[in-house]
Amino acid sequence: MRVLGIDPGLRMMGWGIIDVAGTRISHVANGVCRSEGSDDLATRLLCLHEQLTDVVARFAPNTAAVEHTFVNKDSAGTLKLGQARAIALLVPAQAGLDVGEYAPNQVKKTVVGVGHAAKQQIDHMVRLQLPGVDISGPDAADALAIALCHAHHARSSGRLEAALRKSEARSARGAA
Amino acid sequence: MRVLGIDPGLRMMGWGIIDVAGTRISHVANGVCRSEGSDDLATRLLCLHEQLTDVVARFAPNTAAVEHTFVNKDSAGTLKLGQARAIALLVPAQAGLDVGEYAPNQVKKTVVGVGHAAKQQIDHMVRLQLPGVDISGPDAADALAIALCHAHHARSSGRLEAALRKSEARSARGAA
Repeated sequence: MRVLGIDPGLRMMGWGIIDVAGTRISHVANGVCRSEGSDDLATRLLCLHEQLTDVVARFAPNTAAVEHTFVNKDSAGTLKLGQARAIALLVPAQAGLDVGEYAPNQVKKTVVGVGHAAKQQIDHMVRLQLPGVDISGPDAADALAIALCHAHHARSSGRLEAALRKSEARSARGAA
Repeated sequence: MRVLGIDPGLRMMGWGIIDVAGTRISHVANGVCRSEGSDDLATRLLCLHEQLTDVVARFAPNTAAVEHTFVNKDSAGTLKLGQARAIALLVPAQAGLDVGEYAPNQVKKTVVGVGHAAKQQIDHMVRLQLPGVDISGPDAADALAIALCHAHHARSSGRLEAALRKSEARSARGAA
């Protein structure tokens, strides 16, 4: 079972992929999709969409999760975040994947054990759970934390198995 | 020159298409893309993306414009609007179109003559400028107003001709 985590952002969109087999979790890949602040918004969204679509095509995850941020400090920032989140949700949905959503506190609580953990602590716990991982910056670390959170929650609720069955059925249809 | 206007919204996304030939403007089509509030967000965005992609494929506009809303009353609403706007910007960009952005006041000022016009007044002026038009509700009327605004602004700045040349060059490359 391969899990994609996405930390949405307009300038930097972090992504992280892990494999889950029973209780064993291993790192697959992580990175950041970027868009240029000097480009117009439509071009930036198109650029993020293309990069994230490449990631999904290349690593073929079975399920995905995106951070669910409710509120930002200012409305211009919230609007930008909303636009980036749309791409993060749309791309896995276009590939036929279920997309989980987790609040930042839920991600922190699952990965670190407390809801209000510092960035450093998340980075530390991600490295501890994925030994030897080489992380492409804080956005990719957050994305891996989201993937780990999804793996833990989905495993306990049986969602991983359901997602795997759905994903396999889709592949079988594609191959037929 | 065919212009697509889009009024972004998560539940109802209005669209309107007009043809512009010199000073002559005529109505082509209008409608509303919808998503079900009971579906999860990824499914809703996917659904809007598919409907809007169909509109672009069916009517082949040469240029597009989206309303640029900066602020909403609450942050949850702003986030939703941002997500819907991303789809409105992404779909024409994926078709290779330039996407103009206009603030609501600019649309009203261009179409009605004043920046703070009521919905009814916009509807009236759209009908006046596109005689015989059958409008699929207020979101589609707003989308037609955005298309009219784009036609007026782009014509005066020479952007329509530039968009047409770009669009024709793309078709020629596609045919070659």
